[in-house]
Amino acid sequence: MGSVSLSAGQRPDAHPDVLSPVFWRDGKVVLLDQRRLPDQEIWTAYDNWEDVARAISEMEVRGAPAIGCAAAFAAALAWRAQASATVLRAALRAIGATRPTAVNLGSALHRIANAVASERDPLAEANAIWAEDLAACRAIGAHGAALVPDDAVILTHCNAGALATAGYGTALGVVRAAVTAGKRVRVIADETRPFLQGARLTAWELSQEGIACEVIVDSAAAHFLSRGEIHLAVVGADRITRNGDVANKIGTAGVAAACQTFGVPFYVAAPRTTLDPAMESGARIPIEERATDEVAIVGRRVVPEGVKVRNPVFDVTPARLVAAIVTEDGIHRAPYAFSTARRNA
Amino acid sequence: MGSVSLSAGQRPDAHPDVLSPVFWRDGKVVLLDQRRLPDQEIWTAYDNWEDVARAISEMEVRGAPAIGCAAAFAAALAWRAQASATVLRAALRAIGATRPTAVNLGSALHRIANAVASERDPLAEANAIWAEDLAACRAIGAHGAALVPDDAVILTHCNAGALATAGYGTALGVVRAAVTAGKRVRVIADETRPFLQGARLTAWELSQEGIACEVIVDSAAAHFLSRGEIHLAVVGADRITRNGDVANKIGTAGVAAACQTFGVPFYVAAPRTTLDPAMESGARIPIEERATDEVAIVGRRVVPEGVKVRNPVFDVTPARLVAAIVTEDGIHRAPYAFSTARRNA
Repeated sequence: MGSVSLSAGQRPDAHPDVLSPVFWRDGKVVLLDQRRLPDQEIWTAYDNWEDVARAISEMEVRGAPAIGCAAAFAAALAWRAQASATVLRAALRAIGATRPTAVNLGSALHRIANAVASERDPLAEANAIWAEDLAACRAIGAHGAALVPDDAVILTHCNAGALATAGYGTALGVVRAAVTAGKRVRVIADETRPFLQGARLTAWELSQEGIACEVIVDSAAAHFLSRGEIHLAVVGADRITRNGDVANKIGTAGVAAACQTFGVPFYVAAPRTTLDPAMESGARIPIEERATDEVAIVGRRVVPEGVKVRNPVFDVTPARLVAAIVTEDGIHRAPYAFSTARRNA
Repeated sequence: MGSVSLSAGQRPDAHPDVLSPVFWRDGKVVLLDQRRLPDQEIWTAYDNWEDVARAISEMEVRGAPAIGCAAAFAAALAWRAQASATVLRAALRAIGATRPTAVNLGSALHRIANAVASERDPLAEANAIWAEDLAACRAIGAHGAALVPDDAVILTHCNAGALATAGYGTALGVVRAAVTAGKRVRVIADETRPFLQGARLTAWELSQEGIACEVIVDSAAAHFLSRGEIHLAVVGADRITRNGDVANKIGTAGVAAACQTFGVPFYVAAPRTTLDPAMESGARIPIEERATDEVAIVGRRVVPEGVKVRNPVFDVTPARLVAAIVTEDGIHRAPYAFSTARRNA
């Protein structure tokens, strides 16, 4: 295969002023391996769709919008290798099966299939998906920055940053926009067990830009909230239902509950593609439970053999705990009026 | 030195029907090494106080009541080695410096000093401290069991079990007493980052007795509470102030906040020695921040170099979030009337 590991220290540029974990360059899909951060910054340029599909399923790329971009580029690679509707259908099916719960993956592949059916260039469509996501993140940031006071200490959970999107990020897009607007901010990042996306990814991408960041264990968030040391919390979302319930990384609902108890506003920042107005509330969202060894083995086995482990990786934050939802359209507050029409816009 | 590692598989008995992590036998202090659990169950019999002091400071024994017992036995060893008031004073000072924040350590050493001053046997006093703690735990369990419905799913945080006390435990004493009373219970144990006392110790001691237990990451507690899958939460305490504020392992306040948000009662189980009626509220309790590498290194370094880590190891749960406090005297509800006289009883 023609995959190329780019040399260390030479970061490829997707765009002059943006960190992107997935983009198209010179006929290849470039991915930053997020499993190796922060120890190693490894970029690989893939020239066949099967390798990109494997990279998605093995979480070399993660974050719903970034997965959508990677899937679209993979489909474009498949079409360029062989411009056959039959071959493309098989590729779309295989790519779509890599992470069945990521909402953007399915819609991105649907757009590629539609482009081919309309005799449009699938690569142009993939690049459009990428550019639209980046633009949405910038708009989310611009709207959300208004919610950030000067000298703010901002709590976040997991990584809803540049690394989870085409670039710029959603929750961290709000942080970036506040910094650009001249506000002084400091981020407190939950480490986010079991995969530690906060400790590894959020801390890494903020440190790349010199934005102050402190890492805490997830359970310490309530402590800092109770002491008045945090001014607002902002997180991303995997799915937002019509009533404003928010499915996101496990631990999000606990952050929201602690914010309510200690009187700190809890915000959600997410692109329009995350809205699911067809679903009435979060009660019906299926919650994925992943392999228990992700929890039980921390270097060595820490849970006794024979003891059951539960590993849900998402939770649902009730709308009543959410102060506002920021999308590229602006700042939404309850009662929410997300329409199906808008989602398909 | 005369320390003896007891052979594997041969668990020494402190008492016919109790698991104790620290007790006196045949002129020696027997300790269970809690750093090695659950991989290895290693018991060591120490015959000199310096080794026991080192074992306390290195967290071979942990949990405020268990530390108090170990300290008292260490002081008794010092007196038996040389019945000199001068030598004893030096030993008491060294033992007292091992874990300066554990409240029971100081009071246990004070009792040993008083016994010697009154020409009573310090070993008899140490054994009395041990027996009183065990009796207090059993009484806490008996009172607290009344709060546990049949078929209860019980959330707990950290390890407030036999391993943290002379035996039987405080929060887990409530669980044991409910089981003894014929109630079916299942425990959900927060893993309790960064030291994982829940995953390693709570799961181990419950599995020893066949009490059903599931381990979750700390941030998943709010998820299970939100789904109505948990009926009550019960935790231990390191210090309880006059107004009912509770200092305990980091993460406790977050559990209490999530319980409030999702309408689940949150109980605290602790012996009378934990009450601090001289302190008005939790706002004045100093919170220890430990070494940041306890968080930053999980097998490998997971927080980028240069990124700050905060590692508070206790938090304060406001009294308004506590449904009841269970001591050996019974079930207390707000407004609390903890008196100084009672504490010194």
